[in-house]
Amino acid sequence: MQTFVPSDPDFDRRVRTSFARQNIMSLLQATIVRVAPGQVDVALPVRPELGQQHGFVHAGVVTAIVDTACGYAALTLVPPGTGVLSIEFKTNLLAPARGSTLNARARVLKPGRNICVYAGDVFALDDHGETLVATMLATIMVVRGRPGLVD
Amino acid sequence: MQTFVPSDPDFDRRVRTSFARQNIMSLLQATIVRVAPGQVDVALPVRPELGQQHGFVHAGVVTAIVDTACGYAALTLVPPGTGVLSIEFKTNLLAPARGSTLNARARVLKPGRNICVYAGDVFALDDHGETLVATMLATIMVVRGRPGLVD
Amino acid sequence: MQTFVPSDPDFDRRVRTSFARQNIMSLLQATIVRVAPGQVDVALPVRPELGQQHGFVHAGVVTAIVDTACGYAALTLVPPGTGVLSIEFKTNLLAPARGSTLNARARVLKPGRNICVYAGDVFALDDHGETLVATMLATIMVVRGRPGLVD
Amino acid sequence: MQTFVPSDPDFDRRVRTSFARQNIMSLLQATIVRVAPGQVDVALPVRPELGQQHGFVHAGVVTAIVDTACGYAALTLVPPGTGVLSIEFKTNLLAPARGSTLNARARVLKPGRNICVYAGDVFALDDHGETLVATMLATIMVVRGRPGLVD
Repeated sequence: MQTFVPSDPDFDRRVRTSFARQNIMSLLQATIVRVAPGQVDVALPVRPELGQQHGFVHAGVVTAIVDTACGYAALTLVPPGTGVLSIEFKTNLLAPARGSTLNARARVLKPGRNICVYAGDVFALDDHGETLVATMLATIMVVRGRPGLVD
Repeated sequence: MQTFVPSDPDFDRRVRTSFARQNIMSLLQATIVRVAPGQVDVALPVRPELGQQHGFVHAGVVTAIVDTACGYAALTLVPPGTGVLSIEFKTNLLAPARGSTLNARARVLKPGRNICVYAGDVFALDDHGETLVATMLATIMVVRGRPGLVD
Repeated sequence: MQTFVPSDPDFDRRVRTSFARQNIMSLLQATIVRVAPGQVDVALPVRPELGQQHGFVHAGVVTAIVDTACGYAALTLVPPGTGVLSIEFKTNLLAPARGSTLNARARVLKPGRNICVYAGDVFALDDHGETLVATMLATIMVVRGRPGLVD
Repeated sequence: MQTFVPSDPDFDRRVRTSFARQNIMSLLQATIVRVAPGQVDVALPVRPELGQQHGFVHAGVVTAIVDTACGYAALTLVPPGTGVLSIEFKTNLLAPARGSTLNARARVLKPGRNICVYAGDVFALDDHGETLVATMLATIMVVRGRPGLVD
C-alpha cells in the first residue's frame, strides 16, 4: 500500500464541506465516515425507499455512494483551488445489495495531475459480517480555473 | 434500426408493474414514459435534492435512471416467468446534468438468451433543446428459476 | 448524425501517416479503410494467427483495431500540433469474431477540448453479410505540449 | 486474500494446454508464467513490432495479455467439462507501456457458477523496477454444454 501526501493540509475539512453540499447524499441518508489521503468511505443505511423491484438497494444508489467516495478520495490529493469531476466509471454488481448498511470504500490507483484513476468497493453489512456487493473503476479529472467546479 | 418481437405479449403491463415496485424511482420522482419492444424511456424532473456539490444532478442518479431504462428495455424482450439483472455497466458523463428534465433512453444492442447488451443515453432538456449528458453501456443477465428475481 | 468540421484541413494525411507508424497494425495486417471527420474504419483480414483457444479472433485483437479506429477518429478533429491518447475503454463482446474480415468503425460521441468520447463497433463479414461482434465505449485525452505524443 | 480450491485438480495442465492453443499469444510472443487457483500471470517481452505510433506497446496488446490472464484465472476455478468466455472488460491505461517486459496479473474478485468477475493489472518492468501501466475489470461467463467452447 502506497502512502500519499496531500498537497492541501486542509483536505479533511475541504472534503467534508463539499460532501455536505451534495444534497443527494442527504436524500439517500448517506454519511461520510472516513477521510484519509487517497481514501474515503461513505456509509448508507439500507431502507426500503432505496430499493429496486426485488427489494435490494438499486444499482444507481450503490453507484452514487461509491462514485462520491471515489470523487472525494481524489479531492484529498489535489491542490487547493482545484476541483474534481467524474469522467466515467464502470460498476460491477457482484451480489444483492441488502443488509443493514452499505459501506463504500474508495482508494487511489493512480493520482495524476490531470487524470486520476480510483477503485471503489461496496460492502453490505449484516449480522454475519460483510459481503462485497459491487466494485467500481473510475476515471476522474482534475479541474482548474473553472470557479463553479472547485471543491 | 432492427425490430424486435417481444416473446411476452403482455410486456408493457409487466414492465410498468415492475417499475412501480422500484421504490427508489418514487424517491427520485422518476417516471416511465415509454415502453416499446427493446426500448424504454425514463424521465426525471431536475430538482435541488438530486444535486451533487456543484448543483448538477449527481452521476449516481443519472446512472440510476438509465440503468432502470436499460433493465426494463431488456425485460420487454424476455419470456414470461424470467427476470433480468444488471451485471455491470459503464457510464460516461459528457456534460453537466442540469435543465428542467432528464430523459433516459435505452435501446437493445444485443438481445440474448442469457446475456443481453443495452445502450442508454441521458438527455437534459431545457428551453434551448436537449443535450446528451451521459451514455451507458450495460450488460444484463436473464434470470430463470429464481422466484425472487422474476420481473 | 452531426457533422464535424476538422480544425486541421490536413487531417486525412495526418491520420494515415500516424497509422503507418503503428507497427502492431502491420503485425496484425490491419489497414485503415476510411478517414472522415469524426469517423475512421479499420479492416482486419481474419487468419489463424490471430486466434484464441477456440479459433475466434482474440478479444485483445478486436480491441486493438477498434481502439485504433477510435483514436484516429479523435485525431481527425483535434488541432495541428496536438495528439490523442486513450485513457480507458470498455469492450463488450457480442458474438464470436470469425468470418473473412473484421471491420472496426469508430464515431465521435463527444468531441472535447480535453476529453473526447468515442463509440466503436466491430463487424465480422462473411458470405452471409455482417454481424456485430463487439462494441467499444472509449475515453480519449487530447495531448498538448508533449512533443513525443503529437500525432 | 481469500484462498480458492479448484474443482478440477488438473487445472494447471488444463490452463497451459488451452493457452498453447491461443495462436495470438505466439504471434505476440507472450508466455504464461504462473498458474495458481484464481490467479494467472502472462509475460510479454516488449519489442518494436508491438508498438503504437509513439513506440509504446499498443493498448490492444496490453488488453490481450491481461484478458488472457483473466480468462485463465477463471478457468482455474471452473469444473471439468466447462469453458470460459469474456463477456466484457474495461481497461484503464495508467502509464505508457514500455520497458523490457510487461507482466499481466489476474486475480479473482468473484468466482461464480455462471458469471465471474476478475481484476487484472499490467506492470512494465525496466531497470528501475516495475510500474503499473494498466488495470482491467472483466466479466467472464462460464460455458456449459457447448462442445466447441470447452477449455
